Amino acid sequence: MPRGDEVARSKLTLKELEQHDDFIGRHIGPRDSEIQQMLGELKVRSLEELMEKIVPDSIRDTSALSLPPSKGEKEVIERLREIAKSNQVMRSMIGCGYYDTVTPNVIIRNVLENPGWYTAYTPYQPEISQGRLEAVLNFQTMVSELTGMSIANASLLDEASAAAEAMTLLHRLSKKKSNCFFVAANCHPQTITVLKTKATPLGIELKIGDPSSELKFEDPFGVLLQYPTTDGAVNDYSSLVAEAHNNDIFVAVATDLLSLMLLQPPGDWGADLVFGSAQRFGVPMGCGGPHAAFFATSDALKRSLPGRLVGVSVDTRGNPALRLSLQTREQHIRREKATSNICTAQVLLAVMAGLYAVYHGPQRLKKIAERVHRLATTLAFGLSKIGFNLSNNAYFDTLSVITDDADKLIADAASEGINLRKIEAGKIGIAVDETTSRADIEVLWRVFDPINGDGLDFNLIEEGVIDAIPHSLRRNGPLLNHPIFHKYHSETEMLRYLHRLQAKDIALDKAMIPLGSCTMKLNATAEMIPITWKEFSSIHPFAPEEQTTGYQILTDSLIDMLCRITGFHSFSLQPNAGSQGEYAGLLAIRAYHEANGNSQRDVCLIPSSAHGTNPASAVLAGMKVVVIDCDSGGNIDLADLAKKAEEHRKCLAGLMVTYPSTHGVFESAISEVCDIVHGHGGQVYMDGANLNALVGVARPGHFGPDVAHVNLHKTFCIPHGGGGPGVGPIGVGKHLAPFLPGHPQKVQSQAVTAAPWGSAGILPISWAYIAMMGHDGLKKATEVAILNANYIARRLSSHFPVLYTGPNGFVAHECIIDVRQFKETAGITVDDIAKRLMDYGFHAPTMSFPVPGTLMIEPTESESKTELDRFCEAMIGIRCEIDQIVSGKLPRDDNPLVNAPHTAADISDWHNCYPIELALFPTSAPLSEKYWPAVNRVDQVYGDRNLVCSCLPLEAYKDAAE
Amino acid sequence: MPRGDEVARSKLTLKELEQHDDFIGRHIGPRDSEIQQMLGELKVRSLEELMEKIVPDSIRDTSALSLPPSKGEKEVIERLREIAKSNQVMRSMIGCGYYDTVTPNVIIRNVLENPGWYTAYTPYQPEISQGRLEAVLNFQTMVSELTGMSIANASLLDEASAAAEAMTLLHRLSKKKSNCFFVAANCHPQTITVLKTKATPLGIELKIGDPSSELKFEDPFGVLLQYPTTDGAVNDYSSLVAEAHNNDIFVAVATDLLSLMLLQPPGDWGADLVFGSAQRFGVPMGCGGPHAAFFATSDALKRSLPGRLVGVSVDTRGNPALRLSLQTREQHIRREKATSNICTAQVLLAVMAGLYAVYHGPQRLKKIAERVHRLATTLAFGLSKIGFNLSNNAYFDTLSVITDDADKLIADAASEGINLRKIEAGKIGIAVDETTSRADIEVLWRVFDPINGDGLDFNLIEEGVIDAIPHSLRRNGPLLNHPIFHKYHSETEMLRYLHRLQAKDIALDKAMIPLGSCTMKLNATAEMIPITWKEFSSIHPFAPEEQTTGYQILTDSLIDMLCRITGFHSFSLQPNAGSQGEYAGLLAIRAYHEANGNSQRDVCLIPSSAHGTNPASAVLAGMKVVVIDCDSGGNIDLADLAKKAEEHRKCLAGLMVTYPSTHGVFESAISEVCDIVHGHGGQVYMDGANLNALVGVARPGHFGPDVAHVNLHKTFCIPHGGGGPGVGPIGVGKHLAPFLPGHPQKVQSQAVTAAPWGSAGILPISWAYIAMMGHDGLKKATEVAILNANYIARRLSSHFPVLYTGPNGFVAHECIIDVRQFKETAGITVDDIAKRLMDYGFHAPTMSFPVPGTLMIEPTESESKTELDRFCEAMIGIRCEIDQIVSGKLPRDDNPLVNAPHTAADISDWHNCYPIELALFPTSAPLSEKYWPAVNRVDQVYGDRNLVCSCLPLEAYKDAAE
Repeated sequence: MPRGDEVARSKLTLKELEQHDDFIGRHIGPRDSEIQQMLGELKVRSLEELMEKIVPDSIRDTSALSLPPSKGEKEVIERLREIAKSNQVMRSMIGCGYYDTVTPNVIIRNVLENPGWYTAYTPYQPEISQGRLEAVLNFQTMVSELTGMSIANASLLDEASAAAEAMTLLHRLSKKKSNCFFVAANCHPQTITVLKTKATPLGIELKIGDPSSELKFEDPFGVLLQYPTTDGAVNDYSSLVAEAHNNDIFVAVATDLLSLMLLQPPGDWGADLVFGSAQRFGVPMGCGGPHAAFFATSDALKRSLPGRLVGVSVDTRGNPALRLSLQTREQHIRREKATSNICTAQVLLAVMAGLYAVYHGPQRLKKIAERVHRLATTLAFGLSKIGFNLSNNAYFDTLSVITDDADKLIADAASEGINLRKIEAGKIGIAVDETTSRADIEVLWRVFDPINGDGLDFNLIEEGVIDAIPHSLRRNGPLLNHPIFHKYHSETEMLRYLHRLQAKDIALDKAMIPLGSCTMKLNATAEMIPITWKEFSSIHPFAPEEQTTGYQILTDSLIDMLCRITGFHSFSLQPNAGSQGEYAGLLAIRAYHEANGNSQRDVCLIPSSAHGTNPASAVLAGMKVVVIDCDSGGNIDLADLAKKAEEHRKCLAGLMVTYPSTHGVFESAISEVCDIVHGHGGQVYMDGANLNALVGVARPGHFGPDVAHVNLHKTFCIPHGGGGPGVGPIGVGKHLAPFLPGHPQKVQSQAVTAAPWGSAGILPISWAYIAMMGHDGLKKATEVAILNANYIARRLSSHFPVLYTGPNGFVAHECIIDVRQFKETAGITVDDIAKRLMDYGFHAPTMSFPVPGTLMIEPTESESKTELDRFCEAMIGIRCEIDQIVSGKLPRDDNPLVNAPHTAADISDWHNCYPIELALFPTSAPLSEKYWPAVNRVDQVYGDRNLVCSCLPLEAYKDAAE
Repeated sequence: MPRGDEVARSKLTLKELEQHDDFIGRHIGPRDSEIQQMLGELKVRSLEELMEKIVPDSIRDTSALSLPPSKGEKEVIERLREIAKSNQVMRSMIGCGYYDTVTPNVIIRNVLENPGWYTAYTPYQPEISQGRLEAVLNFQTMVSELTGMSIANASLLDEASAAAEAMTLLHRLSKKKSNCFFVAANCHPQTITVLKTKATPLGIELKIGDPSSELKFEDPFGVLLQYPTTDGAVNDYSSLVAEAHNNDIFVAVATDLLSLMLLQPPGDWGADLVFGSAQRFGVPMGCGGPHAAFFATSDALKRSLPGRLVGVSVDTRGNPALRLSLQTREQHIRREKATSNICTAQVLLAVMAGLYAVYHGPQRLKKIAERVHRLATTLAFGLSKIGFNLSNNAYFDTLSVITDDADKLIADAASEGINLRKIEAGKIGIAVDETTSRADIEVLWRVFDPINGDGLDFNLIEEGVIDAIPHSLRRNGPLLNHPIFHKYHSETEMLRYLHRLQAKDIALDKAMIPLGSCTMKLNATAEMIPITWKEFSSIHPFAPEEQTTGYQILTDSLIDMLCRITGFHSFSLQPNAGSQGEYAGLLAIRAYHEANGNSQRDVCLIPSSAHGTNPASAVLAGMKVVVIDCDSGGNIDLADLAKKAEEHRKCLAGLMVTYPSTHGVFESAISEVCDIVHGHGGQVYMDGANLNALVGVARPGHFGPDVAHVNLHKTFCIPHGGGGPGVGPIGVGKHLAPFLPGHPQKVQSQAVTAAPWGSAGILPISWAYIAMMGHDGLKKATEVAILNANYIARRLSSHFPVLYTGPNGFVAHECIIDVRQFKETAGITVDDIAKRLMDYGFHAPTMSFPVPGTLMIEPTESESKTELDRFCEAMIGIRCEIDQIVSGKLPRDDNPLVNAPHTAADISDWHNCYPIELALFPTSAPLSEKYWPAVNRVDQVYGDRNLVCSCLPLEAYKDAAE
């Protein structure tokens, strides 16, 4: 066809030109040529060979994942768009703890859709986290002001798990020798289901009933009330609380933040503990989550507050500095003493809810609450005019309408696009929310009475309504008085505030975050885009099944993908954190043994190297922990395992094992470990925190474990959000499938979260990641993650001892750098190195886990060779600085490490013996790209003066079990 | 209904509770209580009274705008969603300069949807703009490499206006005494239309024909070729160019960047000037714009390059620093010597196109181009098998198919969801683009022959195709060799690069940008959200009318709103910049006079205070400029006006006047000014740059002007994007309505841009703003804008002289601060103050316009009192520093002003006589919130050594006209 010229044709096939696999190269950091170069440094020829040398033959699976090949970002987004369209977005008036809400656009775009916020890690390193710490402090302040309680934490996983936390906390604190917990029957049903799940293994007996008639004050150690109740009633509990206190009963109250804009807060009538969901403060329903639960206590109980708590301390210059108080972080979790296995908060969602209050301020919030109430009373007055009665006369936003026609009316409303709730036979629940309009009310009147309802005059009725909140329960006086709720009410001011906060923090938009075991990989934009589509975000978790087809397609597909990747038979997506996954997995094991008539099997073997959540989860699942020794290589001591398994053979429930190990090594004896446990009638639980080293390389469901949890927020790209959301699905073998968690609104169900799919709203992220990577990309990601870790280990090995390597001298996907020797030689601690890294522009690796005084580095596959080199050079630079201290060139008490991090405040007050340029600009990077930590080193002692959280060593279990 | 308690009811009506007007308080900075406080400082009681004192009675209009009341963000977004759905998104294969493209998600989220990028101003202050300057430099580098030319500018408005710039530039440079410009008939039709519009007033004669047969080399001064042609042909122009050069003819080439990945670049065969649209490099079609046109020249022509050009210079420390070279900025525009009236580039879109290349790199880009070509040849081979012939055998992406059934086939394709182009009777154009799939090709085969086409085997045909690019025109060797195109290919690296660049710049996310006459107000998120919906972004500008109903609803409605706001009869939305609006308005005046038999009317009166674009536009519209004097108050000298009007009464075309004046004052004589002009047969053109002081307060269409342009990017919230996009619609009285610009693809039309609605894709922004503000909000915005300016003027008046106030001592919406005296008293220039403001964290006000040596401050209504105070305190702080120089406490040659801005580089090299804390931290703001300029003061002399752009004073016109 071309003219006389010679013809040409690109040698590439159309398939190659189509670049369907383009995303793999976007997700993975090093270019192929760099991969070759890095392999060269490790003296291996190919990724294949590297895997051969690292992954034990006994588990290695070289068959391709049975997943489709990688797809382009556009294709996958289009497919998700189709799936999303199978969901039906209705006006939700179901209520029951989930309400439609309007997220301010400035918050959507600049927080929820902004990697500067969503890629951040938990603020364990406060100096580089002042922005989000402030945002969480706003949340805490808001909760504490609205509930009338003296202290509130940084959020919990959901309202139901907050209820469980309340129950266990009160049980522990109670002086009464009672195991009975009274739960008002008018709590949300999903809360009651989860409470049942959690109470049983702990031997707590739930008494569910009407608090006004069925509460016997002599019995329980605690009472749980809901205010307003699940069917909307606003009751005066003040005398009940007084009576409870007289009987040494603690009172916990589940409540609703918006109602508290108008209602007297539980703190005012003496509640000991108040919790609930902050969802309706601008966080989309997302079919159940993720949302932040809030949790607040009286001053008397503040030392026992579960979860994270942001507190104010000072830095070394005496300037105020925020930090996490009460550090119940993974590494410090209270193990056998655990009152909780929670280590994830819902930071991103708590941040959003707090910012919602900051942006609206009390005046606008009060108007929102008043409008909700006005529309509810208007609806009620109209309904009464057409002959309907309510079961409660005092309410805030939710009506409970008495009718014999519940099913028909609910169906009629649905056909008009409105979802209502069947509270029980003869009672319909209708919840008004921020998005309800006059038109919705008119539609409902018409639905309830097509003739007379249609004739009602909205304005006439609205003008005539009076409030349905008893005067005695009306809140008076100003609230949200803190200046933060009065400063940023124009969009410009809010925007700048958000950007100022963001600029203070190191998230993945600024540098790598090489936290061992946390897998801080790319959270790709394409993965994030679908979660803000209304077809995913505006679905109520209890919407009728026929409206959630899209979610069903998505979750079925994701489960299928996870099964293919892990080799397990079935999955539950319900657990909304890794710790919840562990718990749900252990419950499944427990239930399995019970079903087989082995209810005595309650001993859980846990290696001493295990993550702190493991024993904590086991305790909460009602198991006894027996610790297994590790050898000097960090591996499970097989002899000790065999001995303990034999010793406990009659009551062996199972073993919890992290694989690759918490030391970042592929233990080659894993199959033997599993065999020993199985041989003694136990089940093997695998902690999947390190699954990023296995995907496409080995399938846990095939090499021994019976159940494992998978961290979607680590391996499968859900962003860490500054410390949550997390998602921890569990996979199980066929024999355990019947014991997976069930629907939280079904009474006989063992649910672990309030919503059927936990944090369904963010599952599209992992689905998109897997679809875009395909079988080839997922495998390559694992290989490069392992390559990157070994490259760092190799580069740093001549400067620092690298602990724990496998037989061929390789690590898995992370490596441990030993810096303990510098304590003696230079007076330098692991903390000093972590803080000094901030001056170099980096977030520190994991400190002191699993080995105290060391650093664990996990680069992930998403970090480029350039970034790995930059990090290695920083570490080597720090090593040189340490050498100068060792050699006496720098004094032990005045050097860039002990004074790190350095800040702008140092410039005008510099008295140290080394040059300020060395302090501030230790690298050759352009000065214009310098990251400036917001505060100098934070004083932990000062901050903990009033709030102490002690962490026990795992060894303490030995005594307990023996 | 409530229990025995007393009943209560909020005193607020439901309407008040609904907060439909919430957006007003989000857009406007000061709270109502602060407004009262600020009014108090100005000694007036109300905004009403303030308006009475400032706006002349003769123009003030106290009747409410006949617009609906304000609506909530959610309501307006929902309404826009409905409007958007009326557009039909098809697979576009129309081509003709507009192609569907895939914007990388990381660029959408982190640039196009990120206020850190889109709210930035033109980088006239380079020290606080290094991020976007680098991004634009990438764009220039890419264009220059791809076209094979030695220099490329920072972008122009669109391909058609770039063609006009090419024509006028070559006309000016040509040594040949010719007014003939030869245009290849196979250029895009819209380009030819715009060329016709622009050629006529300048006396350039267009010769349109086939360059291979109709070009007589003796005639023209220049030739315009298109490569590939509008119907897709790839021709070898090398001998034509040689021959042209032999005949002293310049050759301009319109081209396509993607094709240049495979084709020999025009620079290689000697083109003097190469331009085109960079749209398909990741910028959505948006129904025509905004997109960046590129423009590149040979080395010989580089001094004549129109538009902005980013160049590399050094700062005072000798470090590389970017800046705008060839500053054809508004203030410096070449007035009567103008070869262009353009002062807006399309920076945001150029940034995106450049980043598209940075992210893809040459390898991926080449694959994209090869795939486009492979699909085109596959389509062609299939079509030939079923009996169709093409009119061109050599092509890149566009086929021209010969058929007698064009209309039917196009309709059939449309019914399958694909738009094709009717090139002319008997010829269908089919353009393949980045988004075309195998399935699309198969659909087309079926459309062209339902039986045989359906039977074609895609794979079989694809395997057999050969390229349709002649070997001699194939590009060889590597391209895009600069390292920038090889560094950021993983999403993580790209993300960090984007955030690093953003962090260097001051945009509205960091601080107020108080540029006089630029109206840097809030660009609200809610306004920005709709522009990335595919129903707006994926529409081809020449899609059939029945598919663009949504755009028609939107534009009709926006025109109606603008008419109600301004009092004009009709509007055209076509001008894609203020300067284009001026030009289109003057053309309308010209056409009106011609239609009335007064073609001799060609004198345009322009006050000496006018913005530089005014005379430049007049010259380009073929008018003679006569300058009118101003009095000492900056007002038009009525006597001089009367005299000049009388003098030129026979050929008076009109007057151009800015209102409020460029001095920021409401001239009370505006009605008399208009009367004088009208009395002499002239028309009044109002420059609407300052419309932000009029909306809801006075209607230009009612108080005199016959035509005005409106800057949607100033008054109506389209973000400045770092120096574009802009939108400059014109409003006219009824008598001028017939002379508004027409559709650019209609041959007899006077179009000023390539697309029918210019930059249609961003019109939703202004629509949303007007809808959300409503009549009450718009009026209040104007009042507060004026209040804010007067508050600043009042606060600063005891520290600096405030120039030009109205009769009651008030300014309008901006104020001029005189700092000229400090040159003598302290050796301090306006530049020093501007740079010192950077240390305080601010972008400088407008410098030296309209009065050299002064600062013009426009705060807009969106700035809070807190921010105004912060700015005033910075100015007062600087004034104190100047006083210290005056008093000798600080030396004239070493003080914080002459050395400003200060950077991190100063820390390690500080030799100045004042403390570094004073240099870096002059405010009491937290050090952790310090903004760090990326470079020290940029050396303008060094940067201009090779590229000089001289600016003539307006006085030069006097000589010319007299």
